[in-house]
Amino acid sequence: MNSDTALLTDHYELTMLSAALRDGTADRQCVFEVFARRLPLGRRYGVVAGTGRVVERLSEFTFSPEIVDWLLARQVVDEQTADWLRSYRFRGDIDGYAEGELYFPNSPILTVSGTFAECVVLETFVLSVLNHDCAVASAAARMVTAARGRPLIEMGSRRTHEESAVAAARAAYLAGFASTSNLAAGRRYGIPTAGTAAHAFTLLHDDEKAAFASQIDTFSKDTTLLVDTYDISQGIRNAIAVAGPDLGAIRIDSGDLSVLAQQSRDLLDELGATDTRIIVSGDLDEYAIASLAAEPVDAYGAGTAVVVGSGAPTAGMVYKLVEVDGQPVVKRSENKATVGGRKTAVRRHKPTGTATQEIIVPQGTAEPQPHDRALQRPYVRGGEPVADLPTLTESRELLRRNLISIPWEGLKLSQGEPAIPVTCVPAKETP
Amino acid sequence: MNSDTALLTDHYELTMLSAALRDGTADRQCVFEVFARRLPLGRRYGVVAGTGRVVERLSEFTFSPEIVDWLLARQVVDEQTADWLRSYRFRGDIDGYAEGELYFPNSPILTVSGTFAECVVLETFVLSVLNHDCAVASAAARMVTAARGRPLIEMGSRRTHEESAVAAARAAYLAGFASTSNLAAGRRYGIPTAGTAAHAFTLLHDDEKAAFASQIDTFSKDTTLLVDTYDISQGIRNAIAVAGPDLGAIRIDSGDLSVLAQQSRDLLDELGATDTRIIVSGDLDEYAIASLAAEPVDAYGAGTAVVVGSGAPTAGMVYKLVEVDGQPVVKRSENKATVGGRKTAVRRHKPTGTATQEIIVPQGTAEPQPHDRALQRPYVRGGEPVADLPTLTESRELLRRNLISIPWEGLKLSQGEPAIPVTCVPAKETP
Repeated sequence: MNSDTALLTDHYELTMLSAALRDGTADRQCVFEVFARRLPLGRRYGVVAGTGRVVERLSEFTFSPEIVDWLLARQVVDEQTADWLRSYRFRGDIDGYAEGELYFPNSPILTVSGTFAECVVLETFVLSVLNHDCAVASAAARMVTAARGRPLIEMGSRRTHEESAVAAARAAYLAGFASTSNLAAGRRYGIPTAGTAAHAFTLLHDDEKAAFASQIDTFSKDTTLLVDTYDISQGIRNAIAVAGPDLGAIRIDSGDLSVLAQQSRDLLDELGATDTRIIVSGDLDEYAIASLAAEPVDAYGAGTAVVVGSGAPTAGMVYKLVEVDGQPVVKRSENKATVGGRKTAVRRHKPTGTATQEIIVPQGTAEPQPHDRALQRPYVRGGEPVADLPTLTESRELLRRNLISIPWEGLKLSQGEPAIPVTCVPAKETP
Repeated sequence: MNSDTALLTDHYELTMLSAALRDGTADRQCVFEVFARRLPLGRRYGVVAGTGRVVERLSEFTFSPEIVDWLLARQVVDEQTADWLRSYRFRGDIDGYAEGELYFPNSPILTVSGTFAECVVLETFVLSVLNHDCAVASAAARMVTAARGRPLIEMGSRRTHEESAVAAARAAYLAGFASTSNLAAGRRYGIPTAGTAAHAFTLLHDDEKAAFASQIDTFSKDTTLLVDTYDISQGIRNAIAVAGPDLGAIRIDSGDLSVLAQQSRDLLDELGATDTRIIVSGDLDEYAIASLAAEPVDAYGAGTAVVVGSGAPTAGMVYKLVEVDGQPVVKRSENKATVGGRKTAVRRHKPTGTATQEIIVPQGTAEPQPHDRALQRPYVRGGEPVADLPTLTESRELLRRNLISIPWEGLKLSQGEPAIPVTCVPAKETP
């Protein structure tokens, strides 16, 4: 089957398109903004991720003859719309917060502008990517903070859809994870990959020592031996007996990790393996990682909690029409106070560099102060990605700097308010 | 970039493979079983989904020359392993619970057998598919129960990764949803798709009536008009003024849906639109759906809660080595009492057809009773899918029948015990 990227779309995008083409509104110039009305319960910041993936796949977002025929046969679209889809490619502009930027309630993290027709069909795809990747990056960043400089390995691929796994590895790396278990993420994005052995490898062999000897024979004694298949203390003794005191690392994947880490360190030291590192894994989330801060742990493997956003598996981003032919528009309904019109976002800082607030104003009305930083940058112009898109490494570095810039309370894992307040200045009422 | 299905895999699967090829254990005959140690908190059953997707993609799970070169260059594998991967395709057997079957703690929902080498490399991919699809189907089935026969439309694509969205639509349909908004799911799996318009369509137009008139002009008055962009009562009046009393349906996407459904029904009836249906959407989960049971609602749109498994976004399935060269093997660790050896699962019933328990015994030791039903069926033989795999429609029907067969308490939404007990009979100790 040929690529169906353009069908990663809600049916109603194409019915709206059909009606708009028929009534002549399809060519109205529109601005759509992507934002989250709130952060997940008690979270203090969100991390922008996925924009690079949106831009990277934009060129695939076209309707092949086979797909148009299918849409016609299924009566999703009429002939006029089918003709339009056959020549569709996005020719508008996209601006947004860079990946690695922090976001808060109502931050306009992506702005898509062009005709109604060309922008509306992107809605579902854009939201799918951003809702997933922002959710993972936001959770992962908290784990990186909790790990206090110790490396984290992302190993959650098996806990999420096979393709989400690749995107999750990318988002976690962006958030500061050191590596991933996911090979496709290694190949597609150049992320370092890591992995040694599972319990099955030990069970396959006649005994634990035979498994360890095989692994060392293949990967040298710099490898990581998984010591908790049977008895952990005996596992450590077997590991050092086979590898000698220069063994690279042991991994513990079960049990009370804080107790086991200290016991394992003591035993390794007693056996002369004072440089052998201890890697722990097994249902670690940011809280479990934080609780191990005082223990002799050298690296963490985190799986489930990363890929499912640690309790917030979707970021709640929406894609809202805010402007038609230069006029602000806004849905009026309870509890959804949305400001119409295209907006500019800046982050204000103290002279020391500490962020104090995010200011969202109607485009063209910003009154810059000396330590303001513009948060939006061009991503696409006339349908083509701009030349100097940030690399994943640059996004990673941007996030690192951003997390230093917010008030320290913003890094607390406990529930609280957004790290900085967001001031939305509404547009003047249009008559 | 060529297909990289075989890289949707954890790094350690290939390091284990390398060591096993080198030490000669790679060819040992192994059995791996997939099961969940527990159901998500308080859930009373799980729904098997995804097995069809595993089998469908199995033929893609090969290592192209480009992928092998990349693995060599990145030193993930050595030359011997690279040679093995170049000619790899799975040649073993897969058995499992049919999609639409219920599962409980320790139900062996998939059994993969073959050499260690050919089975171990499938672990991550198999778990990704099953953990995602079972999580979605299990949540979706509860929503179908809560909806009491009223149709459900799955519209959560935008809340999850773009490819998860397609799999989620499939899982929700399997669970009894009537349709999906996701077009790719429509094309790939033949699932009915649905959708009409978003708030943006109304905002695009000069006023609400113009938007409604356009939609009716394109799709006839049998369409669904979204009436809550501005004022709902006025929206309904506008809808009927434009469409007349034969309007197909209205949709309400915000506000207190129980109050609004009744008010809207009254108003529609007052306007003579007594056959116009009311569709509600907006953050509906199984509890919200159940709370609307007494209201005049004709169909539900459910999004976020379906695609993120309504609080349980991953099913907790593991892929465990249980047998090597005919001998049971088992990891010994606290809190993970796993029974070794390949197992047979049957569901026992009363003569009336009500399920009473699930019995899991070592293969070959089942003592069938008159109303037992075998739960495992062949999926793959010698690497090839068997001929008579169930269709999605058949899986849907199987689930429907299964949900009738469990004791009625099993359908309660409240937290409780598994609907039926699972009895695991351990294998006799091997010397």
